[in-house]
Amino acid sequence: MDIRTIGAAAKAASRTIGVSSLETRNAALQAIADALKARSAEILAANGKDLAAAKENGMSASMLDRLALNEARINGMAQGALELIPAADPLDRVYDERVRPNGLKITKKAVPLGVIAIIYEARPNVTVDAAVLCLKSGNAVILKGGKEAINSNVCLGEIMRSALESVGLPADCVSVVPDTSREAATALMTLNEYVDVLIPRGGAGLIAACVKNATVPTIETGTGNCHCFVDASADLNMAAEIIYNAKTSRPSVCNALETALVDVSVAEEFLPLMKARLDEKNVELRGCERARAILGDCVKPASESDWANEFLDYILAVKVVDGLDEALAHIARYSTGHSEAIVTENAENAARFLREVDAAAVYVNASTRFTDGGEFGYGAEIGISTQKLHARGPMGIDCLTTYKYLIEGNGQVR
Amino acid sequence: MDIRTIGAAAKAASRTIGVSSLETRNAALQAIADALKARSAEILAANGKDLAAAKENGMSASMLDRLALNEARINGMAQGALELIPAADPLDRVYDERVRPNGLKITKKAVPLGVIAIIYEARPNVTVDAAVLCLKSGNAVILKGGKEAINSNVCLGEIMRSALESVGLPADCVSVVPDTSREAATALMTLNEYVDVLIPRGGAGLIAACVKNATVPTIETGTGNCHCFVDASADLNMAAEIIYNAKTSRPSVCNALETALVDVSVAEEFLPLMKARLDEKNVELRGCERARAILGDCVKPASESDWANEFLDYILAVKVVDGLDEALAHIARYSTGHSEAIVTENAENAARFLREVDAAAVYVNASTRFTDGGEFGYGAEIGISTQKLHARGPMGIDCLTTYKYLIEGNGQVR
Repeated sequence: MDIRTIGAAAKAASRTIGVSSLETRNAALQAIADALKARSAEILAANGKDLAAAKENGMSASMLDRLALNEARINGMAQGALELIPAADPLDRVYDERVRPNGLKITKKAVPLGVIAIIYEARPNVTVDAAVLCLKSGNAVILKGGKEAINSNVCLGEIMRSALESVGLPADCVSVVPDTSREAATALMTLNEYVDVLIPRGGAGLIAACVKNATVPTIETGTGNCHCFVDASADLNMAAEIIYNAKTSRPSVCNALETALVDVSVAEEFLPLMKARLDEKNVELRGCERARAILGDCVKPASESDWANEFLDYILAVKVVDGLDEALAHIARYSTGHSEAIVTENAENAARFLREVDAAAVYVNASTRFTDGGEFGYGAEIGISTQKLHARGPMGIDCLTTYKYLIEGNGQVR
Repeated sequence: MDIRTIGAAAKAASRTIGVSSLETRNAALQAIADALKARSAEILAANGKDLAAAKENGMSASMLDRLALNEARINGMAQGALELIPAADPLDRVYDERVRPNGLKITKKAVPLGVIAIIYEARPNVTVDAAVLCLKSGNAVILKGGKEAINSNVCLGEIMRSALESVGLPADCVSVVPDTSREAATALMTLNEYVDVLIPRGGAGLIAACVKNATVPTIETGTGNCHCFVDASADLNMAAEIIYNAKTSRPSVCNALETALVDVSVAEEFLPLMKARLDEKNVELRGCERARAILGDCVKPASESDWANEFLDYILAVKVVDGLDEALAHIARYSTGHSEAIVTENAENAARFLREVDAAAVYVNASTRFTDGGEFGYGAEIGISTQKLHARGPMGIDCLTTYKYLIEGNGQVR
């Protein structure tokens, strides 16, 4: 089935689910959760094919772990669907209502985006996690995962499609693209006739390819070159704990810390403290000349790319700066607009940092690892937007809606 | 000056205006209005050069009229700036504030988009009208108008830059791109490092070029293939008045009507009524076979492109349909998502139309011509969005903002 056919079917299905009741959409989530559990043997068999092929192709152990499903992970996907059921209807929202002097009644009301395309990489969990968020908010979704997970994804897609039909919704509310070629991905990115929004989820390379090639409106997600600035006034023990947590609690995720900026006036005292803590996890440091002068040759010299790129690993770039202004300038230059932190006891510096840093999440005295829909109290998220159009930061079901104006008159002309 | 240099300067300026006070931004609007009036002779001289060149190149009278400035139009631009001064600060908004169980205080606060690029066509008024909306909302703006208006635009840009400096804001909050080449336009559309959002304003060709070429997040505006469906239950005189107004009050604008859909059960009675009214303005009709059978050969046969494209002229496509379902299907197929109307006395059909039509503005018993920031009571608009990401319908100053999360802690780690 080609992408245009899938797109046309998804668009038609979106017209049905877009006006469906909350009860019907919640019934679909329940049916999906039930079917995932009931058909776990099928899912594991399909995933087994993917794993066998991946092993044959020499996939690394950590990538194999991302690809692998088991009963616990299947239950996790089902649980994700079930947890959305009590969530308030994102479509049950009137943003504004007014009667104009000429008698026109204008209502600004939440509606679904329509058809959402999601392009992602290895983890098959995303197939369900992303789909249920789209369905709860009344959208049809077209899913294109990595080729490594194709058997798992097609199986999960079929299970969701059957579940949708069992509650009277069109199966085409969920489509898994069976063609894993790059051409199919490009075709999906340019399917403006049928796709309303594209959300890529994955590494910097995937995001960049979508930004470059997509003509469909796109939400950039998840590239996080996150900084923590240790101000002259910082509680240095707090700063070391925050950096240790932000760097090492889960280095592979987008809200992990990548660069520490340290005020020169506390660098001599702070850097050895920080290093001792990071040594517990064997974190490699790459530093500017001033950092190396303090810590010695155990710190590798940092190159330009060390400031610019995400390590997503047990590596931290370290730069000594001449105060808040240099820290702000460095962040303005290298930040991807995800999460940035300051550790300070100085209220004025905290206020300037909050005001001047241009990022989705700006922290004072806390770890950047909190940038997450669940941690913010907004529930499950489809991604963390690092752009400014539409949604910024963690995107929950509310971000999968738009609005329309309903205008009721009795013959008004202009 | 090349586009990258302009972009870098705009980005730097955006950091200053983005944290400036409402008083400063309002002072800038006042200074711009004053300077436009004080320096009108300069503006008219620059505009005179553009007009002379345009005449030499054989520009049509209607295009010359769009290009021409005079004291009244200059006062109109100044007035546009002054009218924004009393408007509430779009940055003075907290969308959400919460304290999490772990003590983190999270504030979701409005902030400017940053740097907005606007690509537009002949009318030099847009240079000021768009810039003042961006400035009021704390953004820097890069303006690229049509080559026909380059002298006018550069002059207006210089006047605004001086006015900005006079109130202590960076001149680079407003830049007019002096290079009118297509290459410069493409460079601006792909300047992701410095431009946060691109808003094209102009005809379908310009919008399509931006959608195709831009890698910067883009808001599509202003393509309006608008329909009016005359339901079986319609008050036929009301329907004729609404169609007459929507088609003829200003055919060149995006909220003008392009296609009338008429329920077959009232077509014989209604079509002659509608035609008589439209004949007053010599509106050309292009119809389906059933419409032609009723009205005769004075109605030209409609081709596929007549259903799909905007006429922006005294031409109306007419189709007889077998009721609401066919009308909804036709609109779903050909609508550009701008403004769609039904004329009906049937509450159920009205409700279905409002619910099922996927467009920025959906009307019952009123002219599509009301889709306008001023008519909605939202004030001046930078354009009418026909996409679903970020803003939909008339975009006022609030739509030129995004938000960020400010997170304040006392050492929280995850």
